[in-house]
Amino acid sequence: MNLRIPGPIPVPEDILREMSKPMINHRGPEYKDLLFGAAERLKRVFETEGDVWIITGSGTAAMEAAVVNTLSPGDKVINATIGVFGNRFTDIASAYGADVVTLSFPFGEAIDPDALRAALGDEPDVKAVMVTHNETSTGVANDLETVAGVVKGEFDKLLLVDGISSVASIPISTDAWGLDAVATASQKGWMLPPGLAFLSFSERAWKARAESKMPKFYLDVEQYRKYYEIGQPPYTPSVSLMFALDTALDQLLAEGMGSVYERHAAIGQFTRDGVRSLGLELFARDESYASNTVTAVSIPDGVDAAALVSGLRTEHDVIVSGGQASLSGRIFRIGHMGRTTESDIEETLDAIRQTLPIAGFSR
Amino acid sequence: MNLRIPGPIPVPEDILREMSKPMINHRGPEYKDLLFGAAERLKRVFETEGDVWIITGSGTAAMEAAVVNTLSPGDKVINATIGVFGNRFTDIASAYGADVVTLSFPFGEAIDPDALRAALGDEPDVKAVMVTHNETSTGVANDLETVAGVVKGEFDKLLLVDGISSVASIPISTDAWGLDAVATASQKGWMLPPGLAFLSFSERAWKARAESKMPKFYLDVEQYRKYYEIGQPPYTPSVSLMFALDTALDQLLAEGMGSVYERHAAIGQFTRDGVRSLGLELFARDESYASNTVTAVSIPDGVDAAALVSGLRTEHDVIVSGGQASLSGRIFRIGHMGRTTESDIEETLDAIRQTLPIAGFSR
Repeated sequence: MNLRIPGPIPVPEDILREMSKPMINHRGPEYKDLLFGAAERLKRVFETEGDVWIITGSGTAAMEAAVVNTLSPGDKVINATIGVFGNRFTDIASAYGADVVTLSFPFGEAIDPDALRAALGDEPDVKAVMVTHNETSTGVANDLETVAGVVKGEFDKLLLVDGISSVASIPISTDAWGLDAVATASQKGWMLPPGLAFLSFSERAWKARAESKMPKFYLDVEQYRKYYEIGQPPYTPSVSLMFALDTALDQLLAEGMGSVYERHAAIGQFTRDGVRSLGLELFARDESYASNTVTAVSIPDGVDAAALVSGLRTEHDVIVSGGQASLSGRIFRIGHMGRTTESDIEETLDAIRQTLPIAGFSR
Repeated sequence: MNLRIPGPIPVPEDILREMSKPMINHRGPEYKDLLFGAAERLKRVFETEGDVWIITGSGTAAMEAAVVNTLSPGDKVINATIGVFGNRFTDIASAYGADVVTLSFPFGEAIDPDALRAALGDEPDVKAVMVTHNETSTGVANDLETVAGVVKGEFDKLLLVDGISSVASIPISTDAWGLDAVATASQKGWMLPPGLAFLSFSERAWKARAESKMPKFYLDVEQYRKYYEIGQPPYTPSVSLMFALDTALDQLLAEGMGSVYERHAAIGQFTRDGVRSLGLELFARDESYASNTVTAVSIPDGVDAAALVSGLRTEHDVIVSGGQASLSGRIFRIGHMGRTTESDIEETLDAIRQTLPIAGFSR
């Protein structure tokens, strides 16, 4: 099977093997070493001297943790969204009673920093800005450094980031850019199965935590901090994924994050070039912000998206994702995180070439 | 290593191997089969025709889900607690603004149904009762059928149950007893690594859900229901644990839950008899309610609990748990869930016999 969805990604064999190791006591000395070792190396990937918490849950749990640990009901926040997952930040913050100003950019485009600047100028009482680094639903990566420059440098607001499909795949510099809470999840560039989420938490975020009145328990970072002091997790963690994380972090850091980022940039370019060579168009309006972790491809007129995705699966064992929500039927998506090779992508493109005519494509 | 803590438990080899299987698309047809098959068999173990949701998270997440999906801020609830994990229900419900009447029984004892009846009589405006089925911190199992008879049969209140260390190990009959939401977690009698939690949800619980005003997103059962209709999870799930769950459920149901429960009763009795043969006393005040999944043993006067636990680990590779919170230094705990054999327990008892004098024990 050629699993080319934007997560879970194919996990390398040696990391998968770690998942079968026997259980240990999550409140004993071996786990303490595992936890401290993982946290230390996670901080290197996030490029932060702040905290990085390991949560047993999906990436959405870490997004929710970013919100409920820093905000209070009634707080005004701006959510700059460019897709389905960006919209989720509005849903989460609204569910907890925040006053969310949703700044929507057209799907397929990136955040326009000028528009964000104007919105911040219009709303002086905004407490925080929520943004997606890499929008998995549209295959667009925001220029987070520039966005952060506006939010932090010009307006000094709290900045909450969905980095689920970016961290460990494309460059991010948590402290240098002033990101206060960055959420990510194991099934992306971390090369792990799903089930763990990671959340960075800055000193500024801790100040917000002290005033935060949104209710929380399982996702309360204060519990994580308290238990971390004794080398323990607050709640029984996914021990198997911690074993696998240990190995994955070793591999990422042995290679060097610079090389990891370069590989992702190269495979992203290779995928986009290949897609265009089939006569297809990228969904990203401008290639300058096309994502290096997932490529969204527009479905041409007359092509049945469902037939394409299911034909790839049943005839070629190539698994891609369709579009979500309003993008259903309008795009399909190819994931290329982790150790994706050119031959993985070539096989995918070949299968697409053969399936397109069956799905109604005439060039 | 002889891992004898009350979870994670030693996972059988064949189930561990499932954890290393390659990833699949969690929104594709294979996962749909996995999800529906698991949910169907989970219902058989819970003995319910209602829903059972699979949450990526710790057992605490499922306890929180039981609370936030059925209650509103200001709702009066009774929490009948017999230990550290029972107290957690008060912490969770209070964090979300419930008006919690905590009915505490002495650690080492079970819920007194008469006291609960009196409390319910005193508080006619109570909306729900929270109880622990098996209290992992004290090694005591409540007579849940009798407790439920009071809460449901006599007072007709919503009943939320922490079944984390009970379900799949000791008898539970969700529908027959009228349990509205039962939370449990994978690292117990399910014979799985930690990382999944299960939550049963009755029709009555759904009625409460419709009125519930506690905020929620990741733990919102409405999202689970909506996505279940199309055979999907709402958020990226722990795929590896789903593979393992599939195998574990096959094994549990092939053996038959009656036999699983008998094995747990037998190994519980064997452990208690062995503990007493060492000249030690059970922490459970009365053996009639001693737990068949975890045995808590009182630390005799003059014995250093920490030295005992660490001596077992370093000299015998036997891992037991100490006491939590106010029970620290006062008890140690031996877990015997899943496929624990008499020889596992004999080895544990031998190690304890040899270590006790070093820790200060004189008979």
